[in-house]
Amino acid sequence: MKKTSLAVGIDVGGTNTKYGIVNQQGEILQQGEVKTTLFPTIESFVDGLYERLSPMITEHGKEATIKGIGIGAPNGNHFNGSIEHAPNLKWKGIVPIAKLMSEKFGIPCVLNNDAKAAALGELKFGAAKGMKDFIMITLGTGVGSGIIVNGGLIYGHNGNAGELGHTTIRHNGRLHWSTGLRGTVEAYCSATGIRLTAIEMRNRAKKPTLLQQYKDDEINSKIVFDCAMKGDRVAKRVYEFTGQVLGEALANFTMFSSPEAIVLFGGVTHACSMLMEPAKKALEKNVLTVYKGQVKLLLSKLKEADAAILGASTLVWD
Amino acid sequence: MKKTSLAVGIDVGGTNTKYGIVNQQGEILQQGEVKTTLFPTIESFVDGLYERLSPMITEHGKEATIKGIGIGAPNGNHFNGSIEHAPNLKWKGIVPIAKLMSEKFGIPCVLNNDAKAAALGELKFGAAKGMKDFIMITLGTGVGSGIIVNGGLIYGHNGNAGELGHTTIRHNGRLHWSTGLRGTVEAYCSATGIRLTAIEMRNRAKKPTLLQQYKDDEINSKIVFDCAMKGDRVAKRVYEFTGQVLGEALANFTMFSSPEAIVLFGGVTHACSMLMEPAKKALEKNVLTVYKGQVKLLLSKLKEADAAILGASTLVWD
Repeated sequence: MKKTSLAVGIDVGGTNTKYGIVNQQGEILQQGEVKTTLFPTIESFVDGLYERLSPMITEHGKEATIKGIGIGAPNGNHFNGSIEHAPNLKWKGIVPIAKLMSEKFGIPCVLNNDAKAAALGELKFGAAKGMKDFIMITLGTGVGSGIIVNGGLIYGHNGNAGELGHTTIRHNGRLHWSTGLRGTVEAYCSATGIRLTAIEMRNRAKKPTLLQQYKDDEINSKIVFDCAMKGDRVAKRVYEFTGQVLGEALANFTMFSSPEAIVLFGGVTHACSMLMEPAKKALEKNVLTVYKGQVKLLLSKLKEADAAILGASTLVWD
Repeated sequence: MKKTSLAVGIDVGGTNTKYGIVNQQGEILQQGEVKTTLFPTIESFVDGLYERLSPMITEHGKEATIKGIGIGAPNGNHFNGSIEHAPNLKWKGIVPIAKLMSEKFGIPCVLNNDAKAAALGELKFGAAKGMKDFIMITLGTGVGSGIIVNGGLIYGHNGNAGELGHTTIRHNGRLHWSTGLRGTVEAYCSATGIRLTAIEMRNRAKKPTLLQQYKDDEINSKIVFDCAMKGDRVAKRVYEFTGQVLGEALANFTMFSSPEAIVLFGGVTHACSMLMEPAKKALEKNVLTVYKGQVKLLLSKLKEADAAILGASTLVWD
């Protein structure tokens, strides 16, 4: 009897690393989580994962073939299997994680950028199932993206295609805290961007706002969201502005690759209609007639807790 | 003995239509030109082309197989063979030119957007020969583009991918004369955009400029170029600004598809280093570190008079 195939999916985040055993139907059979920051070196990280994952692999390996390990990581380069200069990770320089993992585990290991992994997850199991052309935008601490054209990811000449969060949407606009670029999508539409917009709008507010109850370093996108839900006018305006800037950027992306849909994913999308409505409006306003009403703006259909593991696991099947 | 194959290439422009017989080495064996505006209906246009082209086809057909007709046209949709709502052509609505042509000539006919045809021409015979990932930008009356990813054109979900001239580069910027969009690349970097920038800068100039010798309706990109060549400070500044805006846009495009090169083509590129130097500088300034120094900014290698015919002919081989 032919054994079924399973994949290991690992999502390396700046704070937490999630891992799990996934089948080809996108079901997570077992999963776990560990603090990424516990491991000062990549070698200790690989050892730590081995300690946690090898019992799972042994158990599931009794009745199935573990086909490979898929890793999604910030600045993960699919072509050489290395994490390259990731600003949010402790391991500096070029980290050959795929090689180290496959040596340690004795199983083939594939790496990709986390947002590209998310796009593949959405293509295989989520809101973009069956689509040939769509764009995935992840809205979290940063803004990531994965672009699917003709049913596959775009990598470009050096593997770095799809850094849409770093495109400029406001000439001479807000200075980005780490890239040094001005007026980029990430500077406005990430959780960090929302926080900065909230501080600016609070400081400029002529009428009282709930945001005045918080110090600068207390304000985050969650607090802005809560204030908006309580009806605070300034907090609502923060999301409206963010959605508008996002929609303008999505208009540009639309005229690039003419996607069937744009799928949004990540913490910032919890604001849902507060963000989506102005985004949709700005998207429609800023495209040529031929695109109007043509692009679906969708929220991810994957459970946030699972999406990262699922996305990483699809790298094995891709 | 097996006959060689030849293609007919036709470039339909708002003013002139160029046509020729092209071999697979990209040599134009015979060519001609006719005013597009002579023909009030698409039927009369097809008849007019037949009258001019059929003697050429008959002659070359004695010793070779005429494999097909490739047409590049503004708003040409590759998927359905129709020119759709082209603002610069007399024939309104949806014009099924590929069907009409193949019926009249008895030869298969393929249509594409003119900028996409130019990209294929550059890929097969020009500056991007052998490249898998590059972006073609045509700078003329308008700004067109064709995006090559993994060795092929991107069409997207509805065939309209690659309208980069209509992406926004200046929020709330100059109103485009026909699309109604604000601050788009075409509004600044087309010949029309250069003309408008020149009028604005001339009107704001505090010191004398050669541009003051011309009335608004006399100014065009050629005059601005000539004034700049004579050392006029304001005219030079017009090209510097245009190059800068172009470079900012190219930075955005770079972070989308990570091309090996961006190839510029068209009348506006005659300004050469006056345009290319600020463009290159702005491109490098506005991309993430990982792209810096990675993208070649090239001028087309095709003779301008031939490029349109060559580009259209490649549709037959593609």
